[in-house]
Amino acid sequence: MSDSSEPFALPQTMRASVLKEAGVIVLEERPVPVPDPDQVLVRIESVGVCGSDVHYYQHGRIGDFVVREPMILGHESAGTIVAVGADVDPGRVGQRVSIEPQRCCRVCKYCKRGEYNLCPHIEFYATPPIDGSFAEYALIQDDFAYAIPDDMSFDAAALLEPLSVGIAAVRKARIGVGDSVLIAGAGPIGAIVAQVARAYGAGTVVVTDPVEQRRRMVLELGATEVHAPGEAALDGRAFTAFFDATGVTAAVVDGIKRVEPGGSAIIIGMGDDDMLLPVSYITSHEVNVTGIFRYNNTWPTAIELVSSGRVDLDALATDHYGLADADTPLRDKPAPTTLKSMVHPQR
Amino acid sequence: MSDSSEPFALPQTMRASVLKEAGVIVLEERPVPVPDPDQVLVRIESVGVCGSDVHYYQHGRIGDFVVREPMILGHESAGTIVAVGADVDPGRVGQRVSIEPQRCCRVCKYCKRGEYNLCPHIEFYATPPIDGSFAEYALIQDDFAYAIPDDMSFDAAALLEPLSVGIAAVRKARIGVGDSVLIAGAGPIGAIVAQVARAYGAGTVVVTDPVEQRRRMVLELGATEVHAPGEAALDGRAFTAFFDATGVTAAVVDGIKRVEPGGSAIIIGMGDDDMLLPVSYITSHEVNVTGIFRYNNTWPTAIELVSSGRVDLDALATDHYGLADADTPLRDKPAPTTLKSMVHPQR
Amino acid sequence: MSDSSEPFALPQTMRASVLKEAGVIVLEERPVPVPDPDQVLVRIESVGVCGSDVHYYQHGRIGDFVVREPMILGHESAGTIVAVGADVDPGRVGQRVSIEPQRCCRVCKYCKRGEYNLCPHIEFYATPPIDGSFAEYALIQDDFAYAIPDDMSFDAAALLEPLSVGIAAVRKARIGVGDSVLIAGAGPIGAIVAQVARAYGAGTVVVTDPVEQRRRMVLELGATEVHAPGEAALDGRAFTAFFDATGVTAAVVDGIKRVEPGGSAIIIGMGDDDMLLPVSYITSHEVNVTGIFRYNNTWPTAIELVSSGRVDLDALATDHYGLADADTPLRDKPAPTTLKSMVHPQR
Amino acid sequence: MSDSSEPFALPQTMRASVLKEAGVIVLEERPVPVPDPDQVLVRIESVGVCGSDVHYYQHGRIGDFVVREPMILGHESAGTIVAVGADVDPGRVGQRVSIEPQRCCRVCKYCKRGEYNLCPHIEFYATPPIDGSFAEYALIQDDFAYAIPDDMSFDAAALLEPLSVGIAAVRKARIGVGDSVLIAGAGPIGAIVAQVARAYGAGTVVVTDPVEQRRRMVLELGATEVHAPGEAALDGRAFTAFFDATGVTAAVVDGIKRVEPGGSAIIIGMGDDDMLLPVSYITSHEVNVTGIFRYNNTWPTAIELVSSGRVDLDALATDHYGLADADTPLRDKPAPTTLKSMVHPQR
Repeated sequence: MSDSSEPFALPQTMRASVLKEAGVIVLEERPVPVPDPDQVLVRIESVGVCGSDVHYYQHGRIGDFVVREPMILGHESAGTIVAVGADVDPGRVGQRVSIEPQRCCRVCKYCKRGEYNLCPHIEFYATPPIDGSFAEYALIQDDFAYAIPDDMSFDAAALLEPLSVGIAAVRKARIGVGDSVLIAGAGPIGAIVAQVARAYGAGTVVVTDPVEQRRRMVLELGATEVHAPGEAALDGRAFTAFFDATGVTAAVVDGIKRVEPGGSAIIIGMGDDDMLLPVSYITSHEVNVTGIFRYNNTWPTAIELVSSGRVDLDALATDHYGLADADTPLRDKPAPTTLKSMVHPQR
Repeated sequence: MSDSSEPFALPQTMRASVLKEAGVIVLEERPVPVPDPDQVLVRIESVGVCGSDVHYYQHGRIGDFVVREPMILGHESAGTIVAVGADVDPGRVGQRVSIEPQRCCRVCKYCKRGEYNLCPHIEFYATPPIDGSFAEYALIQDDFAYAIPDDMSFDAAALLEPLSVGIAAVRKARIGVGDSVLIAGAGPIGAIVAQVARAYGAGTVVVTDPVEQRRRMVLELGATEVHAPGEAALDGRAFTAFFDATGVTAAVVDGIKRVEPGGSAIIIGMGDDDMLLPVSYITSHEVNVTGIFRYNNTWPTAIELVSSGRVDLDALATDHYGLADADTPLRDKPAPTTLKSMVHPQR
Repeated sequence: MSDSSEPFALPQTMRASVLKEAGVIVLEERPVPVPDPDQVLVRIESVGVCGSDVHYYQHGRIGDFVVREPMILGHESAGTIVAVGADVDPGRVGQRVSIEPQRCCRVCKYCKRGEYNLCPHIEFYATPPIDGSFAEYALIQDDFAYAIPDDMSFDAAALLEPLSVGIAAVRKARIGVGDSVLIAGAGPIGAIVAQVARAYGAGTVVVTDPVEQRRRMVLELGATEVHAPGEAALDGRAFTAFFDATGVTAAVVDGIKRVEPGGSAIIIGMGDDDMLLPVSYITSHEVNVTGIFRYNNTWPTAIELVSSGRVDLDALATDHYGLADADTPLRDKPAPTTLKSMVHPQR
Repeated sequence: MSDSSEPFALPQTMRASVLKEAGVIVLEERPVPVPDPDQVLVRIESVGVCGSDVHYYQHGRIGDFVVREPMILGHESAGTIVAVGADVDPGRVGQRVSIEPQRCCRVCKYCKRGEYNLCPHIEFYATPPIDGSFAEYALIQDDFAYAIPDDMSFDAAALLEPLSVGIAAVRKARIGVGDSVLIAGAGPIGAIVAQVARAYGAGTVVVTDPVEQRRRMVLELGATEVHAPGEAALDGRAFTAFFDATGVTAAVVDGIKRVEPGGSAIIIGMGDDDMLLPVSYITSHEVNVTGIFRYNNTWPTAIELVSSGRVDLDALATDHYGLADADTPLRDKPAPTTLKSMVHPQR
């Protein structure tokens, strides 16, 4: 670790919540990691629990990514820089930051043309074998730790990560002023996409969800209209874009068929590997069907959206846990009022 | 009909090949149609037979489009202007033209932003209830009859229509210099897409087809490499774009999985309404899956491609029929050496 | 005029404010015009006075466009449909509408690809020899008369025209969430561009103007920061885009040099035909320098921006005149508090 | 230098052609540079002489870039990797490569979104104070040394650099199939842009130049038509895009006025810092006026264009010099038959 930047008295070890195997999380003492020359060490204050964390906890894998060694979960995180590598400006120590939890190679054709999320060599927090941030400290490359405004909470700063997912999805659909949007799923991603779509200019934002309580919540968070799936109110209407935030095949198929000619269907939710899709509708209406694989170049936009008040992330942070209880939100089915569970490693 | 433009002695009636119902084509005498003020009357010299003509002949319908009244098939056509409507420059009489066989409303939002193929009011040759061009004469709006160079054959001029399909598909995939392309199907559309992809800059153009003879032909028509489907030579390779010109689900699925991150899969072939698609691959690789519904603003480009020698359409016109035999290519399974059957209404 | 749609008792003649020659406006009785089959007749309620109206009044020409015959000025207009042509839905009679005051040919390459403002055959209100709307009635093509919401004022509906200029400019610069914008000129166009830029996501919107009163007004209308031209507060800052709404060469040059690499400079204001521009800066920073020539496909967006409250046009309509006084705002230098003068032909 | 990769016996010193001050070039012995961990050392075989080299030689500066210390000129270069840094695959030693002569920071917003040529921290060969490649050896980052095909000459490989300029320019103008192009200047850049425009699909490529011999040469290199500046043959014609490869204000102004509505004018040539441009024409025709500042992500495309035979670079390499004579082409006015002078440091 760089000698030149040590105003914080750092311990030798830290507590970390480690996934040993599917269903087994253990609080362990681990060495505090030491930054490479181009890295910063962040004291983690808030971490959002994501569906992928839950999936790894429950199944020990997501598709081809298998947890073979103990791994720290968590990738939506914010905190304070407490040490920096040799090549990093020591003035950053003390800075409050949000973490973009990926590390790309910077030299492949995807990186060089700016689509670094498609880098074949990418490493990502809490994707085997890379450790995440359910821990007191974590490392990240200097330029992937973004300074946040003083008045942004650590919870909001952590949730810039799922906000980035929403930004990537809305950009992909090229949403602009006056467009109309249909979103399946009123969970945290649905609520984020609704707000982002509005910020990008969408006039009509319809969200569907079977749970009334969630429908009511999302009306405060970007939706202009909510419905239970399949309600007649949607009949005969067509939307510029459809976003799936459920992973449920029936929702995806229904949504695609409500896209107007030339529009987009963006599949964000993770569901079955294969789905029976309405190809004849897709081709005869020139619907663009695609998904997003994380994001690139979203953090500055995300910070702008939150600090200008156009997106409210604090309202999403409904449940809070200390590090010792990090497994609770992974294990228990969330209450209907839960949008996002946050883990606070310093507690 | 405009009095001001009558150097041709037009008959009162014409021969037309009329589809009465599925499987029944009859050669009939019909009145020669009279142009509206904004139309031209074209003496048809050459018409390509399309898979959709075959489908209407065999099934009497394509999806929701049902042949309820007798209808003239044929929509890939070229000929000579022999009369013009009152508002059209009479100097066009005598001009050799290629027909863009669609009529859009010009006032809806799609027309006004240039995507007139998505116009909800569009009328299209040989799509019920609109007559096509298996006839001695046909009408088209003035600006949808494009003058062709003297040295372009009527066969090539007729095939500017399927060439437009290829242009629309290649544009949709944003093919540029150095891109690599995979095409399933070495029929006429596959051969056209191969040539267009090359003209737009693709370096590698791989075409797959189970029939060896067709593979050999497409090597002369744009393909840089051919394979039988599933050959090991494709293993481990990824392409900027995949084009399906088969409509076969297995080919579509296989092709999608060979698209590199951020690439496109364009489904041109008509097949099952629903297909079991690899959604997990699509989303994790951000593949854009879509189709094309005809084309817009393609004719000037098509004429340029052919007259500059970058696309060879004459080589596609392998079989030729008079109007009385127009049902033969609709009824008989094409020989392996057949790419395009052409009907010549003046014979 | 279509017999089928005549609930309004229309007079035979109407009052019109006619520009006879530079500096000479006369109130005349003219026949009420009769709609072509594809037109509607609008009883004009409100017309904004534009800089181009002032220019024609004072100089009798704008560049190559010379007023050779008496011509009615005015092109920012709204009113009520009182009669329709034979091919128009008679149900439109009584509808409150905003007028897009241009008529394109619909068949040239620009029209067919959606850039109809670039149509070489375009006709435009109050551009010689086409009459404008400083009159009790005016004609427009059916699809260029846009229905407005009940709660939108006629003043706002008339000002959808300059709003369209702002939309075209902001689209041209591809403004998105988080971008920063510099605008020279706090007049009505500056105030509109400021609001539109914000609606499209700009975070920082700096407007410069030498008049303090105007700077204060624009702070209520989209600007996040205002300065007198050349203030040190701008030193060392760079903007995603610069918009000139002054036509003053010094402002254009200064603005271009404040654009960041890869950004845009959009010249909206009309000034000298030739300007000494900093080409070395433009090329070494890859600044895109261009202007806008009216607009296309903007009205639906404009209506959405106003009806959703993101753009306030009523606040711009500061001064009001009857038709008999239409020459006053053309002749007199506007007060510092004047943003837009509105002419009301029914008064 | 990495021990792991030393099949070449490297000398301690090398010859280099050093610009001491304006007009003074001296052949010096310098230490062979040692690669950083991420760099390769290239034995330089061929270097093209660029107008900027000539400018530095003659004036000691280009704009704000002033030669304050002795500097090695040359930035269009190719050769063989003879040593690699510690982090580079030692298997690259012996590889024939073309050098992209820039080094970007990889962490700023421009780098991360793929526009690394706009990186504010960029370092560029032969731009003070960075040494270029008029020397027996030069260093470059591993991923900016591109392997070339066996059958590509070192001269062609060196000229991938100006070809990249042409690619960047043609991309900027979004040239596609059927577009028409006007180029001012039949020098090497004009000849390259002509070929690239054709490869991207341009049908008509008109080049103007006052020198007949150059006009004749460019007819073999992409031009479909040549004229002396101001010839009547151009009257009344409009082009999709204009490229200036002269830097002469009159040529730039003339070219801009020949761009059709919505087209582009790309200024590549370096001329006066300020030019009196036809702003009224630019805005009323929505011409996009811009320039290019080097290039990004062009080398793979450049290699493809040359190896597929669509661009001929060898024909441009008309004159050849040893390192001791590197000052000759910098000092002497080129003959009319000279397109590119090449310096060969190993001679």
